[in-house]
Amino acid sequence: MGLNISRIAIIGMGLIGGSLGLAIKAAREEKTEVTGIDTNELTLVKARQRGAADIITADLAEGVAQADMIFLCTPVLQVVPLVKKIAPCLKQGAILTDTGSTKSYLLEQISSLLPEYVHYVPGHPMAGREKSGIEAADVNLFHNKWYILTPPADVNRVATDAVRQVIGWTGAQITVMDAVKHDWCTALISHVPHIGAAALVNLLAYSEDQDSSIKLAGGGFRDTTRIASSNADMWADICMTNAGPIADGLDKFNQLISEVAAAIRQNDRRTVHNFFSTAKERRDELLQLEQAVTGQPMSNGR
Amino acid sequence: MGLNISRIAIIGMGLIGGSLGLAIKAAREEKTEVTGIDTNELTLVKARQRGAADIITADLAEGVAQADMIFLCTPVLQVVPLVKKIAPCLKQGAILTDTGSTKSYLLEQISSLLPEYVHYVPGHPMAGREKSGIEAADVNLFHNKWYILTPPADVNRVATDAVRQVIGWTGAQITVMDAVKHDWCTALISHVPHIGAAALVNLLAYSEDQDSSIKLAGGGFRDTTRIASSNADMWADICMTNAGPIADGLDKFNQLISEVAAAIRQNDRRTVHNFFSTAKERRDELLQLEQAVTGQPMSNGR
Repeated sequence: MGLNISRIAIIGMGLIGGSLGLAIKAAREEKTEVTGIDTNELTLVKARQRGAADIITADLAEGVAQADMIFLCTPVLQVVPLVKKIAPCLKQGAILTDTGSTKSYLLEQISSLLPEYVHYVPGHPMAGREKSGIEAADVNLFHNKWYILTPPADVNRVATDAVRQVIGWTGAQITVMDAVKHDWCTALISHVPHIGAAALVNLLAYSEDQDSSIKLAGGGFRDTTRIASSNADMWADICMTNAGPIADGLDKFNQLISEVAAAIRQNDRRTVHNFFSTAKERRDELLQLEQAVTGQPMSNGR
Repeated sequence: MGLNISRIAIIGMGLIGGSLGLAIKAAREEKTEVTGIDTNELTLVKARQRGAADIITADLAEGVAQADMIFLCTPVLQVVPLVKKIAPCLKQGAILTDTGSTKSYLLEQISSLLPEYVHYVPGHPMAGREKSGIEAADVNLFHNKWYILTPPADVNRVATDAVRQVIGWTGAQITVMDAVKHDWCTALISHVPHIGAAALVNLLAYSEDQDSSIKLAGGGFRDTTRIASSNADMWADICMTNAGPIADGLDKFNQLISEVAAAIRQNDRRTVHNFFSTAKERRDELLQLEQAVTGQPMSNGR
């Protein structure tokens, strides 16, 4: 039996918020009303033009007052200040969720800010693009992608089920995870690789000859550093809100790099070969395991 | 006026050697005879079947005896032992070239092994694939790719021109570079990124939960680590023959990672943001500059 979620407010009508609006409206048509909230008027107009929201407003209090469920789809560091503003305006039984990339920080901060009669169910859709903004919003952005929920142990189960139901309308695959585990795993598989890619680009500052470097780049460099072209604001926020796991992950990464550098200096071909062959085996294994887990190649979030 | 290169021997009929043979035969038909040399009989049979060689042999001395030009297309560490074997068999005025990814090491080692009447012109085609072997050989592998030559200052100019002429038959864009500069630039733009990608995969050994990591991977991880699935033997050889620039590059890379880790721990958002925005700007600039230099996107070696 479905819960009756007839009014949804989305704060932040960019790529994620806009795509959520499009997907919910496509699935529900008149059965669920979507209010799009943003500080940018042009974004709001485009959101309504594209059909990602029925009602648009720049007024937070007005926008959330009647909502059964509120999605916070802003950069991570804007989430907590926004929750402080909207907390007094939310109605009894309202369900709050967000789409931030880091979860423990938000869970700690937000839980204490909300009245008892509002339920918070943190979320993280594994769907991104290099492009951002309402223009890049896509009704199928979440389709068949993982959408992680990290509800705290004491959360209202009906609230979690309601979030599952709404996320289900987007076609995403829902999975539940502990927030701390989420942050550790994400640091290793996403945040550290991101920083590594950016560092590889910045390393070229040491090259005396950019023209020669470009001729020597081949295709590998473009792929390896693709994610270094992402939004700097978003990534700075991620680093600030998942500092412990990321910094520890970077230390371990440095350790691996130091070990292989030492082996190279010592002309220790066996260790160096083992380093490469282990990576090749592990990556091939991961790709296989991923296909088994998701039925899709790992590139689905591209 | 073209030089008369009527007999070419290719040692190592894998992806690179096989593709060279295909391209030379396609351009020259009966005007240049190609001898394919390999220790693997099946590779040789396939090379002839595919039209990458007119004559095939596993006998080095016989294969190179009549050649005007000899291409060494084996893994880097096999090049020097092979040169020792063939040096006494080469005819007066023969031109030797190779396709190894590191150049200073080969230049130092090989120059002293050759008789005065043999000319060595080191080369490095910027064309690779994840697949290897004669099956992956492609007549267009070098077409519009950079092909670097690193001739020593005292090399016979006629010999360099002859190598340019033959490489020209493959449709590659030829450029000349100092061997030491080649090795430094390649370390920064190719070798260090390769090791970084492999280290990012190996880092996942620290993850307690592989299933969760996979769900959280998104598309970035696959791209960033794609080159970690390359041939471990080839990369171990590259590290052994370009140890200095690679190890120094890794040290600098580690330094960049340490600095950003420290900024993250200190909650220094400005430094972290600057790290990401510099990388984004530099990468976008590189891609633009690359299009200007080559008229092609950086992914052409994919």
